[in-house]
Amino acid sequence: MKICVLGGDGYCGWATALYLSGKGHAVAVVDNFARRQWDYELGVQTLTPIQPLVDRLRAWHDLTGRKIELFVGDVTDHDFLATTIASFQPEAVVHFAEQRSAPYSMIDRKHAVFSQVNNVVGTLNLLFAIRELAPDCHLVKLGTMGEYGTPNIDIEEGYIKIEHNGRSDVLPFPKQPGSFYHLSKVHDSHNIMFACRIWGIRATDLNQGVVYGTVTDEVLLDEALINRFDYDEVFGTVLNRFCAQAAVGHPLTVYGAGGQTRGFLDIRDTVRCIEIACLNPAVPGECRVFNQFTEQFSVLQLAQMVQAAGRDLGMNIEIEHMPGPRVELEQHYYNAKHSKLIDLGLEPHYLSESLLDSLMNIAVKYRDRVDPSLFLPQVEWRNPNNTRRQRVRAAAAMESAV
Amino acid sequence: MKICVLGGDGYCGWATALYLSGKGHAVAVVDNFARRQWDYELGVQTLTPIQPLVDRLRAWHDLTGRKIELFVGDVTDHDFLATTIASFQPEAVVHFAEQRSAPYSMIDRKHAVFSQVNNVVGTLNLLFAIRELAPDCHLVKLGTMGEYGTPNIDIEEGYIKIEHNGRSDVLPFPKQPGSFYHLSKVHDSHNIMFACRIWGIRATDLNQGVVYGTVTDEVLLDEALINRFDYDEVFGTVLNRFCAQAAVGHPLTVYGAGGQTRGFLDIRDTVRCIEIACLNPAVPGECRVFNQFTEQFSVLQLAQMVQAAGRDLGMNIEIEHMPGPRVELEQHYYNAKHSKLIDLGLEPHYLSESLLDSLMNIAVKYRDRVDPSLFLPQVEWRNPNNTRRQRVRAAAAMESAV
Repeated sequence: MKICVLGGDGYCGWATALYLSGKGHAVAVVDNFARRQWDYELGVQTLTPIQPLVDRLRAWHDLTGRKIELFVGDVTDHDFLATTIASFQPEAVVHFAEQRSAPYSMIDRKHAVFSQVNNVVGTLNLLFAIRELAPDCHLVKLGTMGEYGTPNIDIEEGYIKIEHNGRSDVLPFPKQPGSFYHLSKVHDSHNIMFACRIWGIRATDLNQGVVYGTVTDEVLLDEALINRFDYDEVFGTVLNRFCAQAAVGHPLTVYGAGGQTRGFLDIRDTVRCIEIACLNPAVPGECRVFNQFTEQFSVLQLAQMVQAAGRDLGMNIEIEHMPGPRVELEQHYYNAKHSKLIDLGLEPHYLSESLLDSLMNIAVKYRDRVDPSLFLPQVEWRNPNNTRRQRVRAAAAMESAV
Repeated sequence: MKICVLGGDGYCGWATALYLSGKGHAVAVVDNFARRQWDYELGVQTLTPIQPLVDRLRAWHDLTGRKIELFVGDVTDHDFLATTIASFQPEAVVHFAEQRSAPYSMIDRKHAVFSQVNNVVGTLNLLFAIRELAPDCHLVKLGTMGEYGTPNIDIEEGYIKIEHNGRSDVLPFPKQPGSFYHLSKVHDSHNIMFACRIWGIRATDLNQGVVYGTVTDEVLLDEALINRFDYDEVFGTVLNRFCAQAAVGHPLTVYGAGGQTRGFLDIRDTVRCIEIACLNPAVPGECRVFNQFTEQFSVLQLAQMVQAAGRDLGMNIEIEHMPGPRVELEQHYYNAKHSKLIDLGLEPHYLSESLLDSLMNIAVKYRDRVDPSLFLPQVEWRNPNNTRRQRVRAAAAMESAV
């Protein structure tokens, strides 16, 4: 199958591109290296030493004989995107090419506007490119479970049947996103649903949970293929941060009571879910929504699991509660459905099995690269202007003064 | 009360600015004249000969002694908007400053992207400006009834109590907007709701129906104050088009069966609703939603009412059914609640009373300015690239050849 992976140099995108290529699909990666640029901007880096994309692609080719095509450019540049789609003629486009950090979108007005314009325009461009240049192509779009927020009712997969005043309808599930980034995904979802309705586009909107893990079968082949492991307060996710903290003997920092509950999945399940979606496309005009996660945990549960895993490695790990930077409920009902991908054949990996291999051991292996100053949240949701740049400048000034 | 009217040179904005000024409020108008620019782009003009804004403001001052402040600039330019808010220090900001035409947003990709970026960025800028520079200022934002689409259940005002699997919650009413423009308003609504939650901003989101009428007490004072009357296929609304068609003896063009049902209101009620919202502000942190319309009609009902009104004026008006350019249901359930503004004191004007005075007579008075080539829809929802510019060029070429 011909599959185009937009954002194929990023964390999920890279693992997905390799997995699909390994399965024999003809894969093209599209990327503008924005993700690497944001590392420079924030003064952070992935714990794992990732290689330049051309080197990674060459290593993959040398090791497997498989060639992944590369298109370098920005999906918000419609001329570039249209040329790419017209030239590669994909049967499926997997769209990871968005700014995906909630804290990044909350830094200040410019970052909020950038996140929404970047994500919404890229997706609009893609919808028009598919409609005009590859109308039968299946759009596989990465959304987020964060679109739903934490309602006091069960979360369904995209749509809910509502009975009201003696009538009923199946309607889009109401959204209560928790950051300007999450909002951008809600905007995308509405735009995609509309494009399917008016143009007969086929789309799968994957509301993905928090992804963890670095190791997939393909990146294990060679150190040159290693994937990102982000633990900083802006692009890192909670589980990565806990493992990096454990690796350097830092207490695990739990925001508030730690009752914040979310859906999680192993990156090995991410790549498999994408392939399942591609192999079982939506029908023309259908905007199908899958909730893409396998288990749900509270933040405190995760901290306790990392603590226990550390104990097995002979570490004594403390848990520290601190005020959270976000505006969110610290205790709430959470029960999100996630059966559609299972019905299509997903066999989940569970955190209890991968925590040591795919997370703790990686964190320990690269612990010399951990910068503990990146653990603590600097972006406060209640503050409309988090002067991150000043912090980075101040740190640099301090360093040069030493 | 100090009230800033963003988009105060447009149709609703102008009527609102005059009304609020006439009631003794200190009013500032903010506008970049985008609405006039779109007329040039499309080769259309309002049926009524409106004056340049500075002339209108001068006439208002000469007639009433009241001064409306003017800030010329674009709300997507944050420096300009922030300077304006900081300098005027409004107690309420009424935000009309968006691209508001569904067909305009459906012309092609560039118009879709422009509509969403323009509207979303303007509103984000305003939210940040309020948070940083006027945190107690009440945001009165114009949304649209079109955000809801046409669900098969009653439409509530912004939120709905959902019972599901034995639990319940009050959640944002699910949205099914019908154009890239309507989608931009849904995006805005989600952004505003979030800003209220994290920053304690006070907001009223007015989901307005289709506004009709040109005459308010204030514009009646002098011909120099006359308001817009748009009847063209891009910016005109159905009732205006019917009246302009009747005025020149053209059949009323009903799309499909004509069962499309929407909420409508007189522009005299628009301006009153805005004042009611300003005088009864939302509390800090509240994102209140009012459905701002007074009656609901199907398109065919409107045609029949115009036909009957024409009969009273001695006209013989035909109704013609034709395929519609939009993707929408031609027959559907529609029952939208709209009691909150009534509860706060709105006394509606009804179409049956104003159709002749405020619509038909205006259309007849200015019928020499009607261009019947603007009646027929040129923007097809199913077509991603409606080459309007070619049409305008072709028409110009034809004319110069004559």
